[in-house]
Amino acid sequence: MYRAAIITLSDKGARGEREDVSGQVLQDMLEENGYTVVRRLLLPDEPEQLSSQLISLCDGGEADLILTTGGTGFAPRDQTPEATLAVIERQVPGIPEAMRYYSLQITPRGCLSRGVAGIRKNTLIINLPGSPKACRENLQPVLPAVEHGLKMLLGTMQECAVNAKD
Amino acid sequence: MYRAAIITLSDKGARGEREDVSGQVLQDMLEENGYTVVRRLLLPDEPEQLSSQLISLCDGGEADLILTTGGTGFAPRDQTPEATLAVIERQVPGIPEAMRYYSLQITPRGCLSRGVAGIRKNTLIINLPGSPKACRENLQPVLPAVEHGLKMLLGTMQECAVNAKD
Amino acid sequence: MYRAAIITLSDKGARGEREDVSGQVLQDMLEENGYTVVRRLLLPDEPEQLSSQLISLCDGGEADLILTTGGTGFAPRDQTPEATLAVIERQVPGIPEAMRYYSLQITPRGCLSRGVAGIRKNTLIINLPGSPKACRENLQPVLPAVEHGLKMLLGTMQECAVNAKD
Repeated sequence: MYRAAIITLSDKGARGEREDVSGQVLQDMLEENGYTVVRRLLLPDEPEQLSSQLISLCDGGEADLILTTGGTGFAPRDQTPEATLAVIERQVPGIPEAMRYYSLQITPRGCLSRGVAGIRKNTLIINLPGSPKACRENLQPVLPAVEHGLKMLLGTMQECAVNAKD
Repeated sequence: MYRAAIITLSDKGARGEREDVSGQVLQDMLEENGYTVVRRLLLPDEPEQLSSQLISLCDGGEADLILTTGGTGFAPRDQTPEATLAVIERQVPGIPEAMRYYSLQITPRGCLSRGVAGIRKNTLIINLPGSPKACRENLQPVLPAVEHGLKMLLGTMQECAVNAKD
Repeated sequence: MYRAAIITLSDKGARGEREDVSGQVLQDMLEENGYTVVRRLLLPDEPEQLSSQLISLCDGGEADLILTTGGTGFAPRDQTPEATLAVIERQVPGIPEAMRYYSLQITPRGCLSRGVAGIRKNTLIINLPGSPKACRENLQPVLPAVEHGLKMLLGTMQECAVNAKD
């Protein structure tokens, strides 16, 4: 099925001081849903470094979907959305909206994730929060839509796309 | 009442290979709600062409409301939101948010429309999805608010605006 | 606790022709929730003037939170979101989304506020609508999340932040 990359943004994780639980949670969820995880990266909260990696993965055609986890909060070094906005060509506002809407049914803090989603070339990029629990709660309800989005993006529906739209 | 223009974005439609059902659905809905549809256009998925038409309709003062249908998905040629963002002066994020929120109650794919809304000069522009069903489901719940928005935009409420806000 | 500034945007208010009821409603709500209101300003709907004030309050480190009221509608002089977008460094889309979502449960017009939220330096800025009723209905449900956001922004949670995220 689809090829996915997972990028964890965490200063502590990148220094080896913290286990990448969230990255593993996302990998498990994706594999259970038929995705092949082709890359797992652990980066510090450095927006330029993240932007470069996103460009490289998208333009190299290595992944159909990139999930990031971490760096979506309010702390000064939380800059994952900015690094993502800098490289996407087309915004997909409805995916983060839906994630926050579902999250808000669980916790009033659900509105604090600043995550964005967008498309660069043939790759969909989605920012998820940093905690394992929030990763699960945010991604689960939108996964069926994400798969449908990838079908549209990669043209793997052809005529059935037309029918599905009606 | 208000003057509306409807622009359908569809490569097949523009080549005459597909009937413009969605444009007709929008026209019927607007007319049932007292709008005069002053223009119906059928364009290919070419963002520069759409941007030019939006500028011309807004700056020429031809329409108070412009609805687009089509080009809000993930396919490479779906670029209606980008063409709209390029010409609006003020974003109206709450209208597409509300449309996706209501759509999400019907289908998990409701979050995939990348539609935006915004104001240029005295015209409100709203992107709707391409399918007739989605057009209906997205527009219906926000139509009363849209009419109120046009009243504010065109200054046709004057003092009652002040009261209505309290 | 946290220091807040309140800016009311209103041409009539700035000319002394209208009482600043909304600013007072926001001050009362903030004080009931433990905030110290360090500044109250009443400005005309002039985006450059608002942008300057926001920059000055943020860069001077005078306030942790700035609430604006007014100028989020569709009237030609409603330009508070544009003045805010011009100065923020990081967007916080989930706060206005949540405010509109809760507002939509009360009135279909809830989607018309064009308000945004964002961070500049160490200050969180949130746009609220102009009416006292809408100020209350928009701010109340997000206040607990706002306080948590300020904790993250100002680093006043340290290690418990990490736990709270899990």
